[in-house]
Amino acid sequence: MTLRVLGIDPGLTRCGIGVVDVEPDRRVSLVYYGVVRSDPSSPIEERLLTIGLGLEAAIDEHEPHAIAVERVFAQHNLRTVMGTAQVSGLALRAAAARTIPVGLRTPSEVKAAVTGYGAADKKQVQTMVARVLRLAEPPQPADAADALALAICHAWRGAGPAAATGGAAALTPAQRAWAAAERASKR
Amino acid sequence: MTLRVLGIDPGLTRCGIGVVDVEPDRRVSLVYYGVVRSDPSSPIEERLLTIGLGLEAAIDEHEPHAIAVERVFAQHNLRTVMGTAQVSGLALRAAAARTIPVGLRTPSEVKAAVTGYGAADKKQVQTMVARVLRLAEPPQPADAADALALAICHAWRGAGPAAATGGAAALTPAQRAWAAAERASKR
Repeated sequence: MTLRVLGIDPGLTRCGIGVVDVEPDRRVSLVYYGVVRSDPSSPIEERLLTIGLGLEAAIDEHEPHAIAVERVFAQHNLRTVMGTAQVSGLALRAAAARTIPVGLRTPSEVKAAVTGYGAADKKQVQTMVARVLRLAEPPQPADAADALALAICHAWRGAGPAAATGGAAALTPAQRAWAAAERASKR
Repeated sequence: MTLRVLGIDPGLTRCGIGVVDVEPDRRVSLVYYGVVRSDPSSPIEERLLTIGLGLEAAIDEHEPHAIAVERVFAQHNLRTVMGTAQVSGLALRAAAARTIPVGLRTPSEVKAAVTGYGAADKKQVQTMVARVLRLAEPPQPADAADALALAICHAWRGAGPAAATGGAAALTPAQRAWAAAERASKR
């Protein structure tokens, strides 16, 4: 049973999207990566609509079993944090509207999961993403590589929504099947 | 030509909505006020979906010519700012998806427009909202009164989107008609 996870690195100018398939033995393969862009000179409401539609199109095309969104902190990057938070709201809502379980992951969780080191730099993360996915080069742009790292982290740490958000959402049939397969693979 | 303006005071636990009709002579009448609530114990994605659906239902029911959303600042209320920003993203996107012009207004703009004093306290704003709308009592809860104040401010300050956001969105036919009526009323 393959689990498909879609990661979203929220951003208003470039919103990274990465999709991976994860096997019960934790082997990961690349499905898709890219960014949705919006024009910084457009009004904020049009930018949010553009990004929201792009995210929804990617979700509907790739039909993930689970979605991971990077957790945004108010303390960081005051200049861009409002747009990032607005995009994360669109991403979370899009997941809930489709009853796809969604989890939030912090940057340090993602770094630790992918490189083994929570304070790894961006280059180390990108190098490990390429290695895990058996790519010759790190994916570009960086926002797409970050979204892939997020998806890999979420899959490896258990993509069940309860684990990630503390929420009470039930597992989907696909997730239950995957969890059972994962348990079986560890015997 | 009456201009209908819908104000949104974004919030994750209580999101205020206020709708007013404004005549060319600047007289304002109440159409609707209320709040959309979400359960603080629910997962964030479900809360955002609940608030988003409630906002969209109110927009579709009242069919405003213009929407005003309170501008959120990253510096204020660190504990709640992320949820507030996420809801403001949903509100802006909902307006853009319906091609309804939307503008952002700061709290001090709203206070100045409604009370004549940019540092007015909440009680003064609520008292003036009741007076402007010829209500016996200030609307409750405060989030709904804030949304009405926002709608009144936006209408009085010129609800054209270009004025409020600096964006290049064209005026709708209703707005052009209202702008013409407003010019005529000043002759």
